[in-house]
Amino acid sequence: MNLMDIKNPDFLKQLNKKELTSLAADIRKFIIDNVSKTGGHFSSNLGIVELTIGLHYVFGAPADKFLFDVGHQTYVHKILTGRADRFTTLRQKDGLSGFQKRCESEYDCFEAGHSSTAISAATGMAIARDMNNDHYEIIAVVGDAAMASGESFEALNHLGGLNTKVIIILNDNNMSIGNNVGGMHNLLNDIRVSQGYENVRSTYRDLLIRTARGKKVYRATKRMKDSIRNAMNNDTMFSQLGFDYIGPVDGHNISEIIRALKVAQRHEHSSVIHVMTTKGKGYDQAENDRLGLYHGVNAFDITKGIQPKYDPDNASWSQIVSSHIKYMMQDHKDICVVTPAMKTGSCLNDIFLAYPKRCFDVGIAEEHAMTMTSGIALNGAFPFLSIYSSFLQRAYDQLNHDIARMDCPCLIGIDRADLVGKDGPTHQGVFDIGFMMPIPNLVIMEPSNETEAQMMINTAYALKDHPYVMRYSNQITSRTLNHTEETLEVGQWVYAYKTDEATSVIISYGDAINDIIKTIKDNDLKVNLINARFLKPLDEDMLMSITHMPIIVYERSLIDGSLGTYINDFYIKHQQVVNIKNLAIENHYIAQGTVPEQIVEEHVSMDDLMALIEEIESERTS
Amino acid sequence: MNLMDIKNPDFLKQLNKKELTSLAADIRKFIIDNVSKTGGHFSSNLGIVELTIGLHYVFGAPADKFLFDVGHQTYVHKILTGRADRFTTLRQKDGLSGFQKRCESEYDCFEAGHSSTAISAATGMAIARDMNNDHYEIIAVVGDAAMASGESFEALNHLGGLNTKVIIILNDNNMSIGNNVGGMHNLLNDIRVSQGYENVRSTYRDLLIRTARGKKVYRATKRMKDSIRNAMNNDTMFSQLGFDYIGPVDGHNISEIIRALKVAQRHEHSSVIHVMTTKGKGYDQAENDRLGLYHGVNAFDITKGIQPKYDPDNASWSQIVSSHIKYMMQDHKDICVVTPAMKTGSCLNDIFLAYPKRCFDVGIAEEHAMTMTSGIALNGAFPFLSIYSSFLQRAYDQLNHDIARMDCPCLIGIDRADLVGKDGPTHQGVFDIGFMMPIPNLVIMEPSNETEAQMMINTAYALKDHPYVMRYSNQITSRTLNHTEETLEVGQWVYAYKTDEATSVIISYGDAINDIIKTIKDNDLKVNLINARFLKPLDEDMLMSITHMPIIVYERSLIDGSLGTYINDFYIKHQQVVNIKNLAIENHYIAQGTVPEQIVEEHVSMDDLMALIEEIESERTS
Repeated sequence: MNLMDIKNPDFLKQLNKKELTSLAADIRKFIIDNVSKTGGHFSSNLGIVELTIGLHYVFGAPADKFLFDVGHQTYVHKILTGRADRFTTLRQKDGLSGFQKRCESEYDCFEAGHSSTAISAATGMAIARDMNNDHYEIIAVVGDAAMASGESFEALNHLGGLNTKVIIILNDNNMSIGNNVGGMHNLLNDIRVSQGYENVRSTYRDLLIRTARGKKVYRATKRMKDSIRNAMNNDTMFSQLGFDYIGPVDGHNISEIIRALKVAQRHEHSSVIHVMTTKGKGYDQAENDRLGLYHGVNAFDITKGIQPKYDPDNASWSQIVSSHIKYMMQDHKDICVVTPAMKTGSCLNDIFLAYPKRCFDVGIAEEHAMTMTSGIALNGAFPFLSIYSSFLQRAYDQLNHDIARMDCPCLIGIDRADLVGKDGPTHQGVFDIGFMMPIPNLVIMEPSNETEAQMMINTAYALKDHPYVMRYSNQITSRTLNHTEETLEVGQWVYAYKTDEATSVIISYGDAINDIIKTIKDNDLKVNLINARFLKPLDEDMLMSITHMPIIVYERSLIDGSLGTYINDFYIKHQQVVNIKNLAIENHYIAQGTVPEQIVEEHVSMDDLMALIEEIESERTS
Repeated sequence: MNLMDIKNPDFLKQLNKKELTSLAADIRKFIIDNVSKTGGHFSSNLGIVELTIGLHYVFGAPADKFLFDVGHQTYVHKILTGRADRFTTLRQKDGLSGFQKRCESEYDCFEAGHSSTAISAATGMAIARDMNNDHYEIIAVVGDAAMASGESFEALNHLGGLNTKVIIILNDNNMSIGNNVGGMHNLLNDIRVSQGYENVRSTYRDLLIRTARGKKVYRATKRMKDSIRNAMNNDTMFSQLGFDYIGPVDGHNISEIIRALKVAQRHEHSSVIHVMTTKGKGYDQAENDRLGLYHGVNAFDITKGIQPKYDPDNASWSQIVSSHIKYMMQDHKDICVVTPAMKTGSCLNDIFLAYPKRCFDVGIAEEHAMTMTSGIALNGAFPFLSIYSSFLQRAYDQLNHDIARMDCPCLIGIDRADLVGKDGPTHQGVFDIGFMMPIPNLVIMEPSNETEAQMMINTAYALKDHPYVMRYSNQITSRTLNHTEETLEVGQWVYAYKTDEATSVIISYGDAINDIIKTIKDNDLKVNLINARFLKPLDEDMLMSITHMPIIVYERSLIDGSLGTYINDFYIKHQQVVNIKNLAIENHYIAQGTVPEQIVEEHVSMDDLMALIEEIESERTS
């Protein structure tokens, strides 16, 4: 059928199984065609086609509420709720969001971006529903990796003991981002194997239902009796926590999905439906992808698949950092690497291959990753923790209470700092400076080029006196094949550009340094540029040396709580009357777009900087 | 024996079971005698006497490393490691810490204060140990409530799949702080009941061992064979997650404890020993306490027990806030209350009794509590989330990503804000302003008296336009028995004291307002005082109206990232040349002591304020 004609999911109720299967094929083709052109989340959406169709077939959204954990697997949901025509704008400025978005559709009741919030939010929604004496269904769809995350467990634990009803769908693709790790993975695997599930994946089989409560309901369902008896002998963690466990279900068999959903619908108590899906289903290279290359993709040629690119002169910051960490690990046997599920995203695969015994992917478990890093640091090894800025937010307390308070010697690499582009508001790395600046003992750094990044890593390792954090963006920067052994003096800033004719001075850091140098040279501007490569501690001598001329602090982070705030604070506390202007992003959540678009949209472009320099110049000469 | 003579735990190895039991009685008496005089954590330490003796009997600290989760149950450990003589200084300024403290003893290898970090830290320590080819034991002692927290689960999940060894002791007292909640609680209960444990608590019984791995080891242990067979049919969540499960064990039977610990010692793989203890063991009123009154105590009379105090004129901020919330709930059926395990601490018991269907204690699960609050707010009810400042740190991401980003209408009460006293560095509520100020959409408030607190609550409920947070300290303030229906204008500050003769102006908020008014009056100071009851948004008109005179910003929070920082930032951004001084706590971790002692120690006393006013006055007149 023509997916563009879909206005809402009501038409589904009239379709028979054959038509539903045919619809699934159409949707899968649509996703492959579209996402290969626009880029976006690929494998997770191909894996959830039949499950999403089943949800809209059995339940009645928007009265019934669907929460997709993380939310990047909602493309099928978006198509079925009348948004197919907007897929050419996916993740673009003013275009269709890559996540659930409340302002986009009444079918999106909650928004995420970070994982493992869906069960908590669904529990809250159920509480509000019950208080209002309403009776609709609330369904949370959660991936297996997100299920192993702390917040999901907290929510399962609470919800399992509550007298309410939420249906949880465990979308188990046995992979998620990177490899799944740990006990929960093994536990799910045991269930799969013990049910002989792996061998019968594509054939129909009876549903197994394991119940903890609401037994009466199923007991009335005659033909289920035997499987119940089976199930009661076969406790899963979910039934131990108080849920009715239903599954495992073949996530690509629409009939089986519908049957399981209807069973959960009839239950009075909360249930977990365990649905087995294949990430990337329908696109061979994605199905066989074990590195997560097809998790989030840029535009690619459908016939060729994603082609590796090699650019000898440029690399991502992730690559530059991981390359030097790997180099250091060769000689320094006390260095180890920790990542919370971002092995591929942060280019750590090479290190994991080279030093498997010193590399730890803990899964989506930022809190554990941070405290574990503290334990490593306090017991005679040197940890490098690699974490995205927006996910570091999950470990604020551990960074403060476990790392900074005990002044643990370690290095934390904050990837995806500052503007991140198409993932939008939930993923912007614009809060970490604000929440880290007041934390005692931290040294906060941001390199402007590869050598500086290497020197920062060397410094943290050589001194081992404090926790060091190094921020870097998701942008591309130039690279050499060299490794330096040099270190930096902590807190020392440098001039990145200096001219005797300067009538004002810019303070900035990171990627922006190179853009500003180019702008100065291209426009022959009479300004100096200071590379504030240590955001904390501030270079107080440098700050005191420039009070005689107008100062601009230029940042691509939030204006509140960022370097500019603390420079302003410094000058006031030191009774300095300075002419200082702050150019940074206004205090709000930043919409999706490309990073260059966001730089313009948020008024932190080189044009904005030049306008400010002109303004200062005209003030000066007037 | 004389506990003061203990230099280290080595003497234990020579004692027989009878002597160990006698030692336990001595220690219990010592704790009751001492803590009833100094105050401190009471019930948890009485519950862990035999277990701690067993640990030091079987293992060889400090080579073997003990991590006590949270750390407030380490008094027995402190006594056995030569610190009995310091118990008269417990939790006092420069005295013995109430938690594990690295600088206090080589037997303290890790520090906590916040719960659920021990398994993560132990995992990190095991990783470092293995990298260094060392072979000592690492033992994490975790309470049942902390085990249900997200970070513990993340750590269990990761550790369960790792090829290393950590011994986890589940100290199951079936209560912890407040009542235990949720599925894990029921699960543990199922284990207790299914083992007939509750009926044989005080009698000796065979250990049940359930193994997931390392089966060979136990199979060699002949007499265990039968119990293993039993156990394999009786999977616990822990064995499903990859641990050898040992238990349940009677936590007040030293022989049983020692036997279980030795089994775990022989295992090659990580294990969970499930130890049943009674909180408050040996002091009747504490054993029977179901509200947590004996969890942390002030000094009390041993013969009478804790006596309720009623002061008609004064109350804690917690009481004042909860009293008005309860009053509001009577007429407004859409208000509900959420707390992460602080029902008694935040004086919510009355509300829970009055409105049990609208009150939710989620256990130690701050992340879940916050996202659940978001779900409630977005689905037609109005949540009041009560949370301590230092535990709010655990939910930073959820506050940002789930509450502020979706601009959820709700009220978050931040209890224990600013200085907290004897709990020391881990519990100070001095970071929340710093991490909240840069978060968009939040309204941040702090009342200076009861009526203002009520008006703030009314305002958040009446407007329902944003997330409101209201901070308050753990101090006592004056109370009325009235409830006002009035609201405040958001962002509007007021003069708390104003005189025409003023030559300078102080900006402050919260408890400090009353202290400053008294200081002004007592000393006949010529200053105005502004009550900045909204920390965000700033009252920009008020700020612009006072630029002509010297300004002091006085706070009892960290100087970096606090109100003063943002006022300084405001003036610079508005090109105002002002004479402004910041009086707040220097950027560091704040040691234990009473709040009045800390105010002096941190140089934010009324004397410090007066000295600053004098300094300004002498500058002005010179």
